[in-house]
Amino acid sequence: MKKILLATTVLALSAGYASAEIALSGSARMGVISFDNDMYFSSRVRIQFDATGTTDGGLSFGASMRADQNGGNADSNGNGVPGDNNGDSTVFISGSFGKLTMGDVAGGASDNLVGQISGVGFTGLGDWNEIGFLGGSATAARYDYTTGNLSVSLGIGQPTVDDDVAPDPESQSAQSIAVKYATDQYNVALGYSKNEDASQIDLKAGATFGAITGTARIAMPDDGVAPDEDMEWGVSLDYAVNPALKITAFYTDHTNSDTVATGLGASYDLGGGASVVGGVVNVDDGVDATEDLRFDAGVTMSF
Amino acid sequence: MKKILLATTVLALSAGYASAEIALSGSARMGVISFDNDMYFSSRVRIQFDATGTTDGGLSFGASMRADQNGGNADSNGNGVPGDNNGDSTVFISGSFGKLTMGDVAGGASDNLVGQISGVGFTGLGDWNEIGFLGGSATAARYDYTTGNLSVSLGIGQPTVDDDVAPDPESQSAQSIAVKYATDQYNVALGYSKNEDASQIDLKAGATFGAITGTARIAMPDDGVAPDEDMEWGVSLDYAVNPALKITAFYTDHTNSDTVATGLGASYDLGGGASVVGGVVNVDDGVDATEDLRFDAGVTMSF
Amino acid sequence: MKKILLATTVLALSAGYASAEIALSGSARMGVISFDNDMYFSSRVRIQFDATGTTDGGLSFGASMRADQNGGNADSNGNGVPGDNNGDSTVFISGSFGKLTMGDVAGGASDNLVGQISGVGFTGLGDWNEIGFLGGSATAARYDYTTGNLSVSLGIGQPTVDDDVAPDPESQSAQSIAVKYATDQYNVALGYSKNEDASQIDLKAGATFGAITGTARIAMPDDGVAPDEDMEWGVSLDYAVNPALKITAFYTDHTNSDTVATGLGASYDLGGGASVVGGVVNVDDGVDATEDLRFDAGVTMSF
Repeated sequence: MKKILLATTVLALSAGYASAEIALSGSARMGVISFDNDMYFSSRVRIQFDATGTTDGGLSFGASMRADQNGGNADSNGNGVPGDNNGDSTVFISGSFGKLTMGDVAGGASDNLVGQISGVGFTGLGDWNEIGFLGGSATAARYDYTTGNLSVSLGIGQPTVDDDVAPDPESQSAQSIAVKYATDQYNVALGYSKNEDASQIDLKAGATFGAITGTARIAMPDDGVAPDEDMEWGVSLDYAVNPALKITAFYTDHTNSDTVATGLGASYDLGGGASVVGGVVNVDDGVDATEDLRFDAGVTMSF
Repeated sequence: MKKILLATTVLALSAGYASAEIALSGSARMGVISFDNDMYFSSRVRIQFDATGTTDGGLSFGASMRADQNGGNADSNGNGVPGDNNGDSTVFISGSFGKLTMGDVAGGASDNLVGQISGVGFTGLGDWNEIGFLGGSATAARYDYTTGNLSVSLGIGQPTVDDDVAPDPESQSAQSIAVKYATDQYNVALGYSKNEDASQIDLKAGATFGAITGTARIAMPDDGVAPDEDMEWGVSLDYAVNPALKITAFYTDHTNSDTVATGLGASYDLGGGASVVGGVVNVDDGVDATEDLRFDAGVTMSF
Repeated sequence: MKKILLATTVLALSAGYASAEIALSGSARMGVISFDNDMYFSSRVRIQFDATGTTDGGLSFGASMRADQNGGNADSNGNGVPGDNNGDSTVFISGSFGKLTMGDVAGGASDNLVGQISGVGFTGLGDWNEIGFLGGSATAARYDYTTGNLSVSLGIGQPTVDDDVAPDPESQSAQSIAVKYATDQYNVALGYSKNEDASQIDLKAGATFGAITGTARIAMPDDGVAPDEDMEWGVSLDYAVNPALKITAFYTDHTNSDTVATGLGASYDLGGGASVVGGVVNVDDGVDATEDLRFDAGVTMSF
């Protein structure tokens, strides 16, 4: 197979658009997973497009999508009504005023600034280290502003077309606000999200002591219906044994589903974008003890 | 995220294929739409591939598809019978004889040379400025030839596999012919399309007077069944206030669906490929007056 | 449309990742097919991504997918259980130990080393020159090793999630082994595949005498149920009339479906990646003689 690469000289000649470009990047992974007492092969490839440009007035703008994000082409369900098929694609414009992003940012401000604790395994092993944020899948908007160590984020969602049968679609629009303060040694972030009667407070704090980074996350969900929802929480530890080897452990208590997950994993950097990654996760839902342990081992690649 | 860009040096080394390349381009948009008394966020990303080459004998050839046009990979419904899943992908070969294009060109000659009047809004607001052409969605072929100010286009479609149950599938093949004469100051195009018993005559004329460009389009459809189909028509005006700002207005009478649309919009070029674009469209179907007005405002980007 | 090409200079500056890159290539075709006494237009576009890198220790790694292979992003059906939606994407790591590939390699070792005899037509005309291999569509793994003229390949599949209801999912995992010996003048390959009770022996041999290359393939399938499965076989001849023109003929006997296919075709290299290709194939299933002849003619392009 011939591999015909792109010509850069053409870029140099088209001076009028010298500020606009599309960058290609990618990631891949391959390995084995054990799950439900079965062993599987697992592989995945992702190709990412990042397009960027600058206006004459100095504003930056751009857009991102993946080769598999077809929804990036379909922002509406006919007649201009936006739906939830924007895949993971995003569009942004930024300047001294901050950055405004639209697209698949429905997790909003909390998702952006609070984030998750560390996970393990080359596949994530079900991402049981994560605790969900309040949000939707429809096209949404987020505003981010950073000054010094402080970052602020505001998110606002919108009704999907499917929800349009409700008496007041607008009331289904999720809103969120989050702030984060980060130095080299520690960071703390607080977020608040609201979606109709439901709301959620998210808190995460992390600190680095030499080779060890500890992170703790708390989520206080309130679906506006159940009277007794509890706090969900998790902690993770990352230990950089040496510049190449990192060991990670986590514990999460998904209180409201009576599920506790523990994970242990390691990652070894092979250089050039490749790492050997493996992990073990135990998911204990208090019901079926025999199907809870899963582990994987494989290679991750970034291009 | 690392952004690994493509190496051009490899192209220079592979002299045998120096004439072949794949160019990446893209477009994106973000903003707000008001529709049915609801306000929505809307965003979209598109990435386009344009592959081109030259034969030893000097013929040009190439192909285009978008990252979301998966159908470009599937031209047939099993066993070689071509279907309608070619997305918007096209393949062409051109030389002094003209240009032959296959793929998603089912709108044919009229779509290519007659085209539409100007629309408004960063999303098109339902594209009510457009009047449809006769054609299909299956893979089709189009031949284009231009000499001086005169362009000629011939299109021929084909039955889809779904239509194959009809007694004579070939009779469902759309055909079209169109001519266009264009100078810097004015242009006029005439097209005729036929698909079984249905036919349509399309006419468009445009003229530029200084900063103002006026365009008028007429479509005379005949579905071969209804006895009293009427002419559908539309006019648009583009006014270039200055090199960056353009104002557009249109009026279309979709006679056969008793719908009249009027639109007003503006576009401001920010440079570098970005523009601020907004518009208002009123769609009056003579039935429900309360849901007719829609407007949008946003940023369009090209990369 | 602006075509903004990628900047290579950025690659030179990011020395840390100088070994990682993503190459774009593509193919397209357009032409006419006659099938079931109907004539059709046919076109197709494919864009391919090949990402590669090198670890500090000198291992090569990489991944491939096409723009239409969305499944490359979805290796699992929830919770980490791998499914069959990896499209044609593959991920590999290689070194002096050989090459390990995961992803859409479910045809396994025989598919890789034995392969098919030559076919005709710019579309393949239904690929009647091919005889199927034993395998699945789920993510699988393949190991390849080559030393001098000798190549060895080992393949192992896995149960799909849909098959998980069976008592012992692992027993549905296909396995295969193949060896190939190839010189400039001749090559011979032997493969054995097993999938539960079914098995298949595949053999192919080819030899080149000046401008003529002859290839023969034999498949001995055994589905473990039918008592009297027969050998299926095919032969092809390629004749290089001159450096640009190649003529190909094939004959295949799909014994177990009582179908015999014969094909004749030609390919003329236009240079620059384009060829004119056409072929005729007769498929005789012993039932309906009137629908058996098909032919095509078109242009193939590689970028």
